[in-house]
Amino acid sequence: MILVMDKSATEADVKKVVSLIEELGFQPHVSKGSERTIIGVIGDERKIKRDQLSLLPHVENVIPILRPYKLASRDFKPENTIVDVAGVKIGGKEIAVIAGPCSVESEEQIFQTAHAVKAAGAKLLRGGAFKPRTSPYTFQGMEEEGLKLLAKTREMTGLGIVTEVMDAADVDMVKDYADMIQVGARNMQNTKLLKRLAQIKKPILLKRNFSATLSEFLMSAEYLLAGGNNQIVLCERGIRTFVDYTRNTLDLNIIPAVKQLSHLPIIVDPSHGTGRYDFVLPMSRAAIAAGADGLLIEVHPDPAQAFSDGEQSLTPSAFQILMREIKALAGVMGREV
Amino acid sequence: MILVMDKSATEADVKKVVSLIEELGFQPHVSKGSERTIIGVIGDERKIKRDQLSLLPHVENVIPILRPYKLASRDFKPENTIVDVAGVKIGGKEIAVIAGPCSVESEEQIFQTAHAVKAAGAKLLRGGAFKPRTSPYTFQGMEEEGLKLLAKTREMTGLGIVTEVMDAADVDMVKDYADMIQVGARNMQNTKLLKRLAQIKKPILLKRNFSATLSEFLMSAEYLLAGGNNQIVLCERGIRTFVDYTRNTLDLNIIPAVKQLSHLPIIVDPSHGTGRYDFVLPMSRAAIAAGADGLLIEVHPDPAQAFSDGEQSLTPSAFQILMREIKALAGVMGREV
Amino acid sequence: MILVMDKSATEADVKKVVSLIEELGFQPHVSKGSERTIIGVIGDERKIKRDQLSLLPHVENVIPILRPYKLASRDFKPENTIVDVAGVKIGGKEIAVIAGPCSVESEEQIFQTAHAVKAAGAKLLRGGAFKPRTSPYTFQGMEEEGLKLLAKTREMTGLGIVTEVMDAADVDMVKDYADMIQVGARNMQNTKLLKRLAQIKKPILLKRNFSATLSEFLMSAEYLLAGGNNQIVLCERGIRTFVDYTRNTLDLNIIPAVKQLSHLPIIVDPSHGTGRYDFVLPMSRAAIAAGADGLLIEVHPDPAQAFSDGEQSLTPSAFQILMREIKALAGVMGREV
Amino acid sequence: MILVMDKSATEADVKKVVSLIEELGFQPHVSKGSERTIIGVIGDERKIKRDQLSLLPHVENVIPILRPYKLASRDFKPENTIVDVAGVKIGGKEIAVIAGPCSVESEEQIFQTAHAVKAAGAKLLRGGAFKPRTSPYTFQGMEEEGLKLLAKTREMTGLGIVTEVMDAADVDMVKDYADMIQVGARNMQNTKLLKRLAQIKKPILLKRNFSATLSEFLMSAEYLLAGGNNQIVLCERGIRTFVDYTRNTLDLNIIPAVKQLSHLPIIVDPSHGTGRYDFVLPMSRAAIAAGADGLLIEVHPDPAQAFSDGEQSLTPSAFQILMREIKALAGVMGREV
Repeated sequence: MILVMDKSATEADVKKVVSLIEELGFQPHVSKGSERTIIGVIGDERKIKRDQLSLLPHVENVIPILRPYKLASRDFKPENTIVDVAGVKIGGKEIAVIAGPCSVESEEQIFQTAHAVKAAGAKLLRGGAFKPRTSPYTFQGMEEEGLKLLAKTREMTGLGIVTEVMDAADVDMVKDYADMIQVGARNMQNTKLLKRLAQIKKPILLKRNFSATLSEFLMSAEYLLAGGNNQIVLCERGIRTFVDYTRNTLDLNIIPAVKQLSHLPIIVDPSHGTGRYDFVLPMSRAAIAAGADGLLIEVHPDPAQAFSDGEQSLTPSAFQILMREIKALAGVMGREV
Repeated sequence: MILVMDKSATEADVKKVVSLIEELGFQPHVSKGSERTIIGVIGDERKIKRDQLSLLPHVENVIPILRPYKLASRDFKPENTIVDVAGVKIGGKEIAVIAGPCSVESEEQIFQTAHAVKAAGAKLLRGGAFKPRTSPYTFQGMEEEGLKLLAKTREMTGLGIVTEVMDAADVDMVKDYADMIQVGARNMQNTKLLKRLAQIKKPILLKRNFSATLSEFLMSAEYLLAGGNNQIVLCERGIRTFVDYTRNTLDLNIIPAVKQLSHLPIIVDPSHGTGRYDFVLPMSRAAIAAGADGLLIEVHPDPAQAFSDGEQSLTPSAFQILMREIKALAGVMGREV
Repeated sequence: MILVMDKSATEADVKKVVSLIEELGFQPHVSKGSERTIIGVIGDERKIKRDQLSLLPHVENVIPILRPYKLASRDFKPENTIVDVAGVKIGGKEIAVIAGPCSVESEEQIFQTAHAVKAAGAKLLRGGAFKPRTSPYTFQGMEEEGLKLLAKTREMTGLGIVTEVMDAADVDMVKDYADMIQVGARNMQNTKLLKRLAQIKKPILLKRNFSATLSEFLMSAEYLLAGGNNQIVLCERGIRTFVDYTRNTLDLNIIPAVKQLSHLPIIVDPSHGTGRYDFVLPMSRAAIAAGADGLLIEVHPDPAQAFSDGEQSLTPSAFQILMREIKALAGVMGREV
Repeated sequence: MILVMDKSATEADVKKVVSLIEELGFQPHVSKGSERTIIGVIGDERKIKRDQLSLLPHVENVIPILRPYKLASRDFKPENTIVDVAGVKIGGKEIAVIAGPCSVESEEQIFQTAHAVKAAGAKLLRGGAFKPRTSPYTFQGMEEEGLKLLAKTREMTGLGIVTEVMDAADVDMVKDYADMIQVGARNMQNTKLLKRLAQIKKPILLKRNFSATLSEFLMSAEYLLAGGNNQIVLCERGIRTFVDYTRNTLDLNIIPAVKQLSHLPIIVDPSHGTGRYDFVLPMSRAAIAAGADGLLIEVHPDPAQAFSDGEQSLTPSAFQILMREIKALAGVMGREV
């Protein structure tokens, strides 16, 4: 941690800061510049409350040196984490494709979709039983009945099941049905939910909030890691910007950023990330080319009749084309689908 | 709802859309423009799923005419809603000031703060017992013990208590201690929590999420209203932008926007909204001048020692100055503190 | 254009609007909905000033139906525009790579870079002679001397020259040296410059402003098209968002958006778009996979010594790797480098 | 400047950096932390190119300590700058109101507006002769004829004239007519224009670009100051965010930020900042309450007929109300209109 003193700070002001740093059990390191005096704080800065120092007289700025997350950092664990979801290894050579409808709507709908995505080559099925909708007047999900349909679909197709949990109170129920539990963008900082999920043994798909910085995103992973669950896959799904031709701005730049700073795998959800079915194919290709470890794709047998997210869902035949193109691309990237 | 057909749409394409609209029980209204044919859909468009129409062949665009919220709109209820919190009427002539620490930290801390803010003229005390922190390594709140201290403080000082609930499972506990329950920015779209809070009789302080549009904000209020709780106060607390001199960008423009579109009162939290104690005073004045119905201000007896948010907390004496300035301003605005 | 009347609008209010529309020479088309009356305006809405209608009493909202640009739209010209720059065809099957230093710094530097990028397979050389720097204390470019060095480099290497013009007054000078003239992000809405460039016969590389919507971007192209220059290549180079791990947020979503709405080619500048040399390779691949028609890449023989933008420049050997990877990718995409 | 070495940096890596710092004529200051070694660079860091250090092996991060602007900083000049525009002192006790139409449209229009704003208490008249429009198909300004009308209006009314210049080539012409020259948001980083304006003796109204950080904004002022013109008034006019109820997001938080970091006065343009005439009054009050030194307000005798920006223009009578409210507010703030 670096403290920058303001221009008018006197020797005495600096001394006061230095003594406080020592009292807190850290080692101060003063260096007088041409215009400012700066004071380095040596020790594990994560243990200091910034305010204790920033509110001292004549302290102009406090600059952290270490990143706030530790267990999620590549510094801490240099090799890639590989997460096993029902036999699919995410984070290694394989590109994982998780596909399926936004919501489970009926037995027929989920069976039909599952067969279609399996035929196209997907090994994991997504489907929501609890839906966090913007409007109280729209479909809110089939809840446990939906989870049961997902489990039945797994039995029939062998596909692993990825489904969202929205509340800490539902974790026990959901974990019995799912192979991987999704934390939605709106819950990325639901700390009670994260703490509960840290205690279970299931892999977690952690989606980035619309307005999360990378540091906040990795801090949410840190909650899981600190609590004991290291089976985490990150997922980029679009950020909020001024842009209006997509529902969100899918931010593929985060892929090289995550690869550099963290050991966790990252996949991309171009369906939510763009909100447009006609952008899903090009942005899926782009995600893989940028180095993503997988894709999360919404597929529905009849998007116009979907209970939710029809505008961003692929038909089974469009999904087949996507799988074909992704396979070709994976080859060039030295990976496999 | 207006459907814009693309340039290549034929008579037959238009007919197909028209028939579907009729089948859905709505009345179509075709109008041929110079470059585009547009089709109006007459009826309560909130009952149509957009995708059913937007995914039809040659439909280029679907434009909603009505806003998605109804009960929260001024159309529905033209007169201002006034919310009574422990005798303080929010939304009328009075400007309500809710002040107190970010977190309840100890009996001494909360008593001392409560006395100070009361002496300065505040009638409502804020204080958090559950803290949604970015980092798992920082103070997470005193939980029920904190709520008990708040209740005790109310007894001693007569101040009404405003405190946050973070999880639907805690609503029962919190409602017994609080005069007003706060929904934090990160929970603005926690629909399970909103549905639970809709069923209780306590006033709700609903904070805007960092990246919420006005429509999303009012849709969260709609969840509460649709469920039966109309005692809602909105709160602006900063949005996420590219700007770096404040932690968030306090967006006062939302005040006239809310006043125009909704009957609900709106207050402003310049402490979280700017993240800087030295900006709290000017931005509080600005909020009142823009027409806000109140303020939510963080006050701590010793900000440098605060367990959380010290950098944005006022000392009791700075808060006293703020109250004095707000009172003078209120006079000019035809209001009272 | 659609006018939405507010809830309290009477028959008489609607009549007043209808008469004005007729007076303006357009045809009104009234349709009474369940909660609102809406009035369609038939005719070329680009000729109406929005305010004339939006400021009428009881007009709640004015919704344009047509996009503001015409010549730049795919409606107007369905087939792709192909721009020929010194024999390189941009917008067809070929993927064009424009590479070179941010600034021309010396004869040795530009020659060395030119040879290196040519050896790696680039056919066009970029290099700035006028530099729009944030700080007045930094290098501002070699101006005409730099242009002469570029021309000399073309003679020696056969590479086409792409260089920026920053001021309408310099267009005559720059056009004599350049094969393609770049309009920088900060000048995207410099209408005097655009009008001047519309009159010359050189291809234009039009960069998107940091905060431009797609509509604003295409309106700048419209200035060029309306003035008679249809040799335009668009360039995405990052938008400003809250994200901090890149200098800008490279927005690849704009590629499918441009392909849908416009006939103009679009290339991507991952150097400025990310501001980080180590992100240039993955984001270049992603751009091509998303469907971009080319790349604009900063290359410098010794980035640490570059007068500007060293942090985002590739070394010649890193550029060689990039070209190799792009070639492999182009094959999968059915394109060529 | 602080260099943070990465975790794997050896003694030898640190030594290499230290020698380079010494070679560059600066003094290195090494401090070994628990997880990272950091190296302070003592001397005027504005003279080092960041890349020279950031691209060295094992340098993880380069953190500037000094702000990039100097002459614009309050460190450099602690007392407020007061700018005299035709006798109106901006930056002192007086709150300056500059009012008038977006564009000069005709003699009658500008005379009528001038008389109205003068009657209401404004002392400075704004009016554009060159209009930077998004669309090539809309009114582009009366150019020199407009300037002549402005000069004639000054003669008749005694109002000082504030008008925009869009191109360095027009500075000579404009400066003969204007009392204050406006640099528009789109030209904030037009360095050729800034350098030219630095050489004249007229006060400059420098508007913030939609996506400018405070540092970039003050660097543009630095161009003027470094070139010799210190008569600068800053103007906030809205930033681009995801928000859709205003055309831009008027960011009043910049007022206390500027007051802290710079000695230059700052005024606010709520007309462009919100794009809505009905938000101009509340946001004008908010601006003054936040500490702004003045306002820039669009007024038009008949907004619905305005050639540009009618939707955000006040009628003369609405402007009269605004002036009355601002005067009352100024009293409370210890200022005068």
